[in-house]
Amino acid sequence: MKSRTAYLTFDTQERHAYVNITPQVREVVQESGVKEGIVLVNAMHISASVFINDDEGGLHQDFQRWLEGLAPYSPESYLHNRTGEDNADAHLKRQVMGREVTVAITNGKLDFGPWEQIFYGEFDGRRPKRVLVKVIGE
Amino acid sequence: MKSRTAYLTFDTQERHAYVNITPQVREVVQESGVKEGIVLVNAMHISASVFINDDEGGLHQDFQRWLEGLAPYSPESYLHNRTGEDNADAHLKRQVMGREVTVAITNGKLDFGPWEQIFYGEFDGRRPKRVLVKVIGE
Amino acid sequence: MKSRTAYLTFDTQERHAYVNITPQVREVVQESGVKEGIVLVNAMHISASVFINDDEGGLHQDFQRWLEGLAPYSPESYLHNRTGEDNADAHLKRQVMGREVTVAITNGKLDFGPWEQIFYGEFDGRRPKRVLVKVIGE
Repeated sequence: MKSRTAYLTFDTQERHAYVNITPQVREVVQESGVKEGIVLVNAMHISASVFINDDEGGLHQDFQRWLEGLAPYSPESYLHNRTGEDNADAHLKRQVMGREVTVAITNGKLDFGPWEQIFYGEFDGRRPKRVLVKVIGE
Repeated sequence: MKSRTAYLTFDTQERHAYVNITPQVREVVQESGVKEGIVLVNAMHISASVFINDDEGGLHQDFQRWLEGLAPYSPESYLHNRTGEDNADAHLKRQVMGREVTVAITNGKLDFGPWEQIFYGEFDGRRPKRVLVKVIGE
Repeated sequence: MKSRTAYLTFDTQERHAYVNITPQVREVVQESGVKEGIVLVNAMHISASVFINDDEGGLHQDFQRWLEGLAPYSPESYLHNRTGEDNADAHLKRQVMGREVTVAITNGKLDFGPWEQIFYGEFDGRRPKRVLVKVIGE
């Protein structure tokens, strides 16, 4: 079994951001030499997400507006924010969008449908945060 | 390490549908010859889902009504639909239900609890869409 | 390839509970002898969740209040409850929080960010329910 581990760092200028990280994941898969296997990609921070969806800016604005409706920023509403944080909403938004994706590797490539792209979803940015990429296979 | 890759195609008659795909996944696992490992099952389209829950028709109607409340069809409300699509709601619904599941294989079988069944969740159907099944293990 | 399978059982006193299961998962990983690989941790019941977030009691109360808003207990509102159950809401809550997590193992350890902890999320407790831990790697 082969494996490869890589860490990507993101420091978004805005509190909320969606970053297409497919090229970086593809590069790690290529470097791994794995032909058949899987790649796990996960946020290492609990107020951020890794998910797969469409690379379309309008949709990303829809996501943000929708998540704000489901889990508003509203810092005074959350018990978590009594710890001195103001990011409880980011912990909730990340549960909707998910922590991680696992993608099949077939013939050395990400085995994707026509529109699948991997995104880093940031809900409490403006500081460096990491994403883990782990390849296993043969 | 052994691996096996299969693609399942679904073309639902309705816009929304829940299809139990456990038998097809079980067959791929059996064909793989893997005794200890995992199977990844994911939608290859970004307006559909693969998830694990109960095979009970009332619950599936509850899911649909609930998702419609969380992310209504309402095509004029979404920026994504300015691209000419009318399926922004399907992209959102799929985030709630999830893109993929990973299931343990133990002694050559899906290692499931008593009620676990794998479903394809379609939120923008009436056209052929694919699901990927990837087995790795030994 | 090495693998190891373990089953954890939880019987919470309350209907809703969040249990930090990181120590138990860490122990299974250590026993597996796997240095590079992944561990899958999933609820085996469809009204419970395994997820990764912060070990902070205020946040867990926020989760519970938020989930109750998104998918209220309200047993008369759901078709699923016509089967004699009263837990349709638990099936919905678990979709938001997720069934499973996959965690990378690097140098024999859970490859975690600074605040990541694994939780069992119970939405219909007061009876014994199981969690599966599956390690694969080398």
